[in-house]
Amino acid sequence: MLADTIAAVATPPGEGGIGIVRMSGNRAIAVADKIFQPRRGLKLSDSPSHTLRLGYIIDPDTGETVDEVLASIMRAPHSYTAEDVVEINCHGGSLATARVLQLVLRHGARLAEPGEFTRRAFLNGRLDLAQAEAVLDVIRAKSSRGLAAAVLQLQGKLSHKIGKISEWINGALAAIEASLDFPEEVGEVGTEELKGLEEAREEIKGLLVTWEEGRLVNEGLKIAIVGRPNVGKSSLLNALLNQERAIVSHIPGTTRDTIEETLLLGGYTCRLIDTAGLRETADALESIGVARTRQAINEADLILMVVDLSTGILPEDRLIFEEIAGRDKNVIIVGNKIDMVKEKIKDRFSFFEGYPQVNVSAKEGIGLDELATKVREIVLGGRVGTQNDDVLIIRARHRDALEKCLEHLEAAITAWKGGVPTDLVAVDLWAARDYLGEITGTTAREDLIDRIFSDFCIGK
Amino acid sequence: MLADTIAAVATPPGEGGIGIVRMSGNRAIAVADKIFQPRRGLKLSDSPSHTLRLGYIIDPDTGETVDEVLASIMRAPHSYTAEDVVEINCHGGSLATARVLQLVLRHGARLAEPGEFTRRAFLNGRLDLAQAEAVLDVIRAKSSRGLAAAVLQLQGKLSHKIGKISEWINGALAAIEASLDFPEEVGEVGTEELKGLEEAREEIKGLLVTWEEGRLVNEGLKIAIVGRPNVGKSSLLNALLNQERAIVSHIPGTTRDTIEETLLLGGYTCRLIDTAGLRETADALESIGVARTRQAINEADLILMVVDLSTGILPEDRLIFEEIAGRDKNVIIVGNKIDMVKEKIKDRFSFFEGYPQVNVSAKEGIGLDELATKVREIVLGGRVGTQNDDVLIIRARHRDALEKCLEHLEAAITAWKGGVPTDLVAVDLWAARDYLGEITGTTAREDLIDRIFSDFCIGK
Repeated sequence: MLADTIAAVATPPGEGGIGIVRMSGNRAIAVADKIFQPRRGLKLSDSPSHTLRLGYIIDPDTGETVDEVLASIMRAPHSYTAEDVVEINCHGGSLATARVLQLVLRHGARLAEPGEFTRRAFLNGRLDLAQAEAVLDVIRAKSSRGLAAAVLQLQGKLSHKIGKISEWINGALAAIEASLDFPEEVGEVGTEELKGLEEAREEIKGLLVTWEEGRLVNEGLKIAIVGRPNVGKSSLLNALLNQERAIVSHIPGTTRDTIEETLLLGGYTCRLIDTAGLRETADALESIGVARTRQAINEADLILMVVDLSTGILPEDRLIFEEIAGRDKNVIIVGNKIDMVKEKIKDRFSFFEGYPQVNVSAKEGIGLDELATKVREIVLGGRVGTQNDDVLIIRARHRDALEKCLEHLEAAITAWKGGVPTDLVAVDLWAARDYLGEITGTTAREDLIDRIFSDFCIGK
Repeated sequence: MLADTIAAVATPPGEGGIGIVRMSGNRAIAVADKIFQPRRGLKLSDSPSHTLRLGYIIDPDTGETVDEVLASIMRAPHSYTAEDVVEINCHGGSLATARVLQLVLRHGARLAEPGEFTRRAFLNGRLDLAQAEAVLDVIRAKSSRGLAAAVLQLQGKLSHKIGKISEWINGALAAIEASLDFPEEVGEVGTEELKGLEEAREEIKGLLVTWEEGRLVNEGLKIAIVGRPNVGKSSLLNALLNQERAIVSHIPGTTRDTIEETLLLGGYTCRLIDTAGLRETADALESIGVARTRQAINEADLILMVVDLSTGILPEDRLIFEEIAGRDKNVIIVGNKIDMVKEKIKDRFSFFEGYPQVNVSAKEGIGLDELATKVREIVLGGRVGTQNDDVLIIRARHRDALEKCLEHLEAAITAWKGGVPTDLVAVDLWAARDYLGEITGTTAREDLIDRIFSDFCIGK
């Protein structure tokens, strides 16, 4: 399998300045030599690693020049996959790039499967499984915080922590095994190993605590904006999006559709759940769309219930509130249209007891920062937010493995303390160690690995 | 203007394996040094030209690692723009790429305008204007033939021909000017110069002949498929698209939407004009949609009028044919459903005298190759198709300039032969030379250049 050479287009489809055809494998350089003619100087196979060369892609069958390109060569093991890699930077049209890909496929490479480059990096030991997953999380990151967390994981910070925990467990296991093999020489397994296991336990707990935030920075926070017609839900949405645009859409290169219903609020990526298409249809009581509201509430991590300060609470508002009240959901009451309220009575509004309320004017852009702060407070639930350089658990898979690991570790510690024979303790420690290995991939099964890489795009 | 350093994302927007941030200008390397930290070895400013370096993009203000990247350096003048160029290959997510761009913009680069990299290549003399235009034509190419023509132009084949023509004109002008300055020494301007001008004229005529085909390979052929309901227009479209898919969609990396209504027929890109949404609504006579058909016919280079061999010509068919007949349009009558016709009478159908007819079965895929051949015949109009290595005029701008040039050249030749004083002949020759210069950019005005580059995407 690893003997063959894979190729794919590594840039997003569509029109752009540059399109890249990437090849990896034993024959990558030989294949490139067949179709790449340098404008001057050495051919690729004679070029040193990590160099670039301008030249032409020429179809050897027809002599036709397909494109003017910049070819780069990275020799094993100093490449993304730890294999020989050639990247051909074509003019960005999809046809030119596709033609170049077609040529490399015809001359000895085969089309890469999704994620296969990264999978090779994993199989060749250049990345562990957690790092490989982080590659995808970097690509998919939707907030700076999510990007930072993924980059840390890509750099191996999580793997390093997992390695430290494994060492403690391995230390205990080694001591147990030694004491079983040579009971006279080693003597009883001591308190030092037990202390190591307890440190491992605290480390895992510390990681698990980051999951809630990790999930939020990675997946984003689902927010439902609910309320009766004409309280200003759409205006609030637009006001929030406009504030967001001020941050994000100054960054060229981000596409419109990724922020269309996504925004940053209090530093978190928020995905807004469309209630009633976020558009009012008619003012009739039926149009409140209680069923839709209910669904949105079910899916949401946080509910912004919008009420109109200028009218006060109407029966329709209570109808919606009844759907929310008593559920185990985070709720913020958003009092809108504060600009239409007389100066002096502004502070008096507090509609639903026990629920935090922020008064805003979506129209005038008043109170939006306060709302963002409140979102952050509620999301963190009293916890202190992590710093950008803290490791976060951002994948449910890692959380699950850590929880299983913790279970067995706690069982082992309890048994150890209870004087259970150490060979029985070892069974739990082996299990704990295997669950850690699932995170970094040392004990991950083929079908899990398949599943992880099938999420990737082709060319990565 | 050229003193500053420009930056942009050079890859298409969206999710992919690699996203490139490209910088060009005096400070490109210095800006990169501020944010790029190599994993090991030399920093970028100490690295030789045309090398690649693995490292991290670190926000110098926060110390945060934004992405793991591969940075490449190409020093002036050996780069795309002939300036110092740094390309940063990020993980392909739009956010990671956008963050890196944001950092380079914050540390001394400014956002590039559309086409500004190529414009700099032009201003710095690395490409002439025709070559710069070819960059865009390569990116936008929709057929192999169009791509080949654009690549030839990018390589300077058209510019070379223009240069040759200019030399003939310049030779004549030099002789005229010398004879005016020193009439005694030089004597009369001779037949050799006249012969040169006649050669130039023939060369221009030869180029102009390629325009019709150049336009077709570049813009594609507009084909209207018309016909009454139920003759099988949609089936024919689908059959043609399926045949096309067999050629094109085996090439991964091409997006679906580019071929949705575009296909290759007889080697040409064909853009199908949607008649009546290509969907039938009802069988009533009104649904023929004569108005829509008329519009499609007006826009088309070629009309495929589909009739049903199994029913023969009905009054509705005649209604549509009346719209076509007598116009100066290429028409092919496509007799569909030949599979439903008895063996022996197959060859007898010929519905509209004087119009070529091809009988097919869209359902069974019969006759489609013959249809493609007929399309090619008609498009070429008896001319021999060019080879892939022939220079084609693919831009209307070049055609227009060549026509103006030809006008003045012919006027000059006629005047010369008629014994008009050579200083008057020179006026036409200057004009002819200026029109040639518009093609390669030596005499192109700023607003023309602005217009050409504004068509480019950002990052190219």
